[in-house]
Amino acid sequence: MEVNADDFFKAAALDKPRVTNKVGSNVTLINVMQIAGLNTLGISIARIDYAPLGQNPPHTHPRATEILTVLEGTLYVGFVTSNQPAPNRNKFLSKVLNKGDVFVFPVGLIHFQFNPNPHKPAVAIAALSSQNPGAITIANAVFGSDPQISDDVLAKAFQVEKNTIDWLQS
Amino acid sequence: MEVNADDFFKAAALDKPRVTNKVGSNVTLINVMQIAGLNTLGISIARIDYAPLGQNPPHTHPRATEILTVLEGTLYVGFVTSNQPAPNRNKFLSKVLNKGDVFVFPVGLIHFQFNPNPHKPAVAIAALSSQNPGAITIANAVFGSDPQISDDVLAKAFQVEKNTIDWLQS
Amino acid sequence: MEVNADDFFKAAALDKPRVTNKVGSNVTLINVMQIAGLNTLGISIARIDYAPLGQNPPHTHPRATEILTVLEGTLYVGFVTSNQPAPNRNKFLSKVLNKGDVFVFPVGLIHFQFNPNPHKPAVAIAALSSQNPGAITIANAVFGSDPQISDDVLAKAFQVEKNTIDWLQS
Amino acid sequence: MEVNADDFFKAAALDKPRVTNKVGSNVTLINVMQIAGLNTLGISIARIDYAPLGQNPPHTHPRATEILTVLEGTLYVGFVTSNQPAPNRNKFLSKVLNKGDVFVFPVGLIHFQFNPNPHKPAVAIAALSSQNPGAITIANAVFGSDPQISDDVLAKAFQVEKNTIDWLQS
Amino acid sequence: MEVNADDFFKAAALDKPRVTNKVGSNVTLINVMQIAGLNTLGISIARIDYAPLGQNPPHTHPRATEILTVLEGTLYVGFVTSNQPAPNRNKFLSKVLNKGDVFVFPVGLIHFQFNPNPHKPAVAIAALSSQNPGAITIANAVFGSDPQISDDVLAKAFQVEKNTIDWLQS
Amino acid sequence: MEVNADDFFKAAALDKPRVTNKVGSNVTLINVMQIAGLNTLGISIARIDYAPLGQNPPHTHPRATEILTVLEGTLYVGFVTSNQPAPNRNKFLSKVLNKGDVFVFPVGLIHFQFNPNPHKPAVAIAALSSQNPGAITIANAVFGSDPQISDDVLAKAFQVEKNTIDWLQS
Repeated sequence: MEVNADDFFKAAALDKPRVTNKVGSNVTLINVMQIAGLNTLGISIARIDYAPLGQNPPHTHPRATEILTVLEGTLYVGFVTSNQPAPNRNKFLSKVLNKGDVFVFPVGLIHFQFNPNPHKPAVAIAALSSQNPGAITIANAVFGSDPQISDDVLAKAFQVEKNTIDWLQS
Repeated sequence: MEVNADDFFKAAALDKPRVTNKVGSNVTLINVMQIAGLNTLGISIARIDYAPLGQNPPHTHPRATEILTVLEGTLYVGFVTSNQPAPNRNKFLSKVLNKGDVFVFPVGLIHFQFNPNPHKPAVAIAALSSQNPGAITIANAVFGSDPQISDDVLAKAFQVEKNTIDWLQS
Repeated sequence: MEVNADDFFKAAALDKPRVTNKVGSNVTLINVMQIAGLNTLGISIARIDYAPLGQNPPHTHPRATEILTVLEGTLYVGFVTSNQPAPNRNKFLSKVLNKGDVFVFPVGLIHFQFNPNPHKPAVAIAALSSQNPGAITIANAVFGSDPQISDDVLAKAFQVEKNTIDWLQS
Repeated sequence: MEVNADDFFKAAALDKPRVTNKVGSNVTLINVMQIAGLNTLGISIARIDYAPLGQNPPHTHPRATEILTVLEGTLYVGFVTSNQPAPNRNKFLSKVLNKGDVFVFPVGLIHFQFNPNPHKPAVAIAALSSQNPGAITIANAVFGSDPQISDDVLAKAFQVEKNTIDWLQS
Repeated sequence: MEVNADDFFKAAALDKPRVTNKVGSNVTLINVMQIAGLNTLGISIARIDYAPLGQNPPHTHPRATEILTVLEGTLYVGFVTSNQPAPNRNKFLSKVLNKGDVFVFPVGLIHFQFNPNPHKPAVAIAALSSQNPGAITIANAVFGSDPQISDDVLAKAFQVEKNTIDWLQS
Repeated sequence: MEVNADDFFKAAALDKPRVTNKVGSNVTLINVMQIAGLNTLGISIARIDYAPLGQNPPHTHPRATEILTVLEGTLYVGFVTSNQPAPNRNKFLSKVLNKGDVFVFPVGLIHFQFNPNPHKPAVAIAALSSQNPGAITIANAVFGSDPQISDDVLAKAFQVEKNTIDWLQS
């Protein structure tokens, strides 16, 4: 089969602002679904838009580390370490990033980015170490799955009333 | 350096019931910290105890797939798929496991086990595809990190009142 | 394609004793042939039954490390290191395992388990670091292959009479 | 050892234009040398500046695939396939990239980027699938190594006069 | 640290015949112990000498596939597949190789080479897919380990008399 | 599907001299295209013929490290390190190899072999750490691709006149 430049190309318009979602962000990921030539090559790239006070909410990538640089605005970013012994037990590492700064989110760890500016949007370019990194938004996967995880499980796990769980899931 | 059988051995007492934690479970993991000979070999093993109505709450392993078999009692288990397109978007896959059944939790996905029996404990043996799989309990990492993730981020991510967040974090 | 919990599940009855073979053991392996969802995930699990004085005879797994814990009875286990320089040249590392103990057999090394108790069976759960670990029983592969390896080769390799070889192969 | 956010951070100033080299480009790579926390994580990121008519000359990354998006200006990019059978034998795949477009350069293949605009600079962000991807500028490695590859070898390989080789190497 | 050509070189004299051992073969392996620059690079090379009627007896490489070509003489080679379902259960695949032929022994499988010529030696060059492939000579590991595997285990595994085992081990 | 010895075999005639190409060499590579059983096994083997004063010109393997031994004659070999900091920046490491010597060319680095003898051919056996290593002859990929890389790019990259580039490409 003859290869072609278009197998390795996508007119992705990563320079264009996106409409953000209800928590104030939008991730435009270019992975192996968009560029077939990425198959087995272990990398993908994304543009992330943040509305003023918007966030890319706590999530993980089950198969990739992420490295990110800020193009516009300011981001408050962080990740939480795993259930290790102290002093690293569920330690929250955070940083305020300005334009041009670079930050790394290790594979599988829960992380987020937040735009602390109430007036200006922010933009980042992120790269991920898989052609199909996957993404799990914690709130959606835990409280918004289809079907829903049973209240009994969630109530005890999060030590909250069933009422709160029902409200979160609705 | 001369190798020795003890480099590959641990008197782990995996046959002995453990005292369960406040959500009713206990994980005894034998990984490369306990058996130095596991280094680079890509596997570890665990006993998991469940109190009546206890659970191993929603968590992920950032670097391992888990396979589990039930030794005693019954378990209601499940995992949630990632943010894929429909029909697999945050799909919750669950199953009731009886003694001798086997279930798989793919790498990095949020999963849990729950003992639905109000009177009897349950026990499982699980194996993980890394000598250092890591574990992230979602509730602890999101609402109980050190220091805490800011209320502003969590409130919007989980679409809840700051009061609820404060209460969850305390 | 929509995924389903049954893609990750097997009613494997790993709690049930098995009839053992002529050397007094039985391995019930749950790998990617039984659970399609294990594909590429690098793990599998097995129950092993041992009759009194039974053994899981010397064998290797060409693509996996094994970690094992004893559920019932006692096991005398061991493996032999490769043709390394002294003091590790073909060194035999062995251990008596009681209930709850854990032992590791590194990838590709010849190992066995033996139940030294003349009256009671033993049971173990083992996990392997591949969804398709393979197993090579040395006696069968060397002396019972189909067709048989020529006597000339085996006689010299094992420094025995052809008569012994013929008898072993019959 | 306690981990720290600074282990995963670099004030890399990737938003700032760089002075370009004699062929009109500058690569600012943030890899494991700049961010220690990248160790084993398999990713790095770079800003590339291109002067008007500048180029990032033909080069390879021995341990990484590259994915690139254009931030400013226009780039004419391409790579050459390996010595495969026709129709893919040393095939040159090229594309003109505008702002927001994405292109992939598979691991180990010779590729370049050229800014065809005689008046305006261009800028790209690239990501690489290794924390230490390496880079080999073909002209420098072949004609400018230390010490130099002998003229006899190069003259025949490139089918040119020794005079040309001497001149190229000086 | 400055690298040097000698980090990637060994005056291995692979062109020189070796004195063969008691089963009529000699393996001269050039791995990471001889060439430090091979570290992490996943390959090694060997010369194998075979006396007339000599053999490289049944063995496995726990961490490598082997590919071999015959330089001098003739070789009868073979390997045995693992405990798979029929028709591939412990199937013995063999071939007579002449000068210039190439054969592959997949990772972890038991294989051998035998020189069927009663008058002439044979020579092969083999390559292995690891910088430290390891080798396990079955006869030595099973019947000649240090200390010896107990007769009880071996007698039952190989279904032979203890007398034969004692004799094999001496 | 039943496996067969021929899936792992090739009558490759690696003992037979080959007609060399215009730069005086010939590479006969036995990879997964010739031996289907090599699939996923990570190794291949080659015979390389060198005419008097012939060379295997500067090239890279994008997916493999190479290890080589000289069967006949003498070879002057070398590779160039990547764009690292001094003292390893584009360092040329070279060695004269005699019969039986072994040399390693790390993955992705530009390397060559040259037969310095004006009267006698040379022969080497090389192994590569991939079942499909790929090869990129620098001169062909840079100056002889299809279609050709534009003169503008090459002239500046190699700091030569367009006339020279045109002549090189013809």
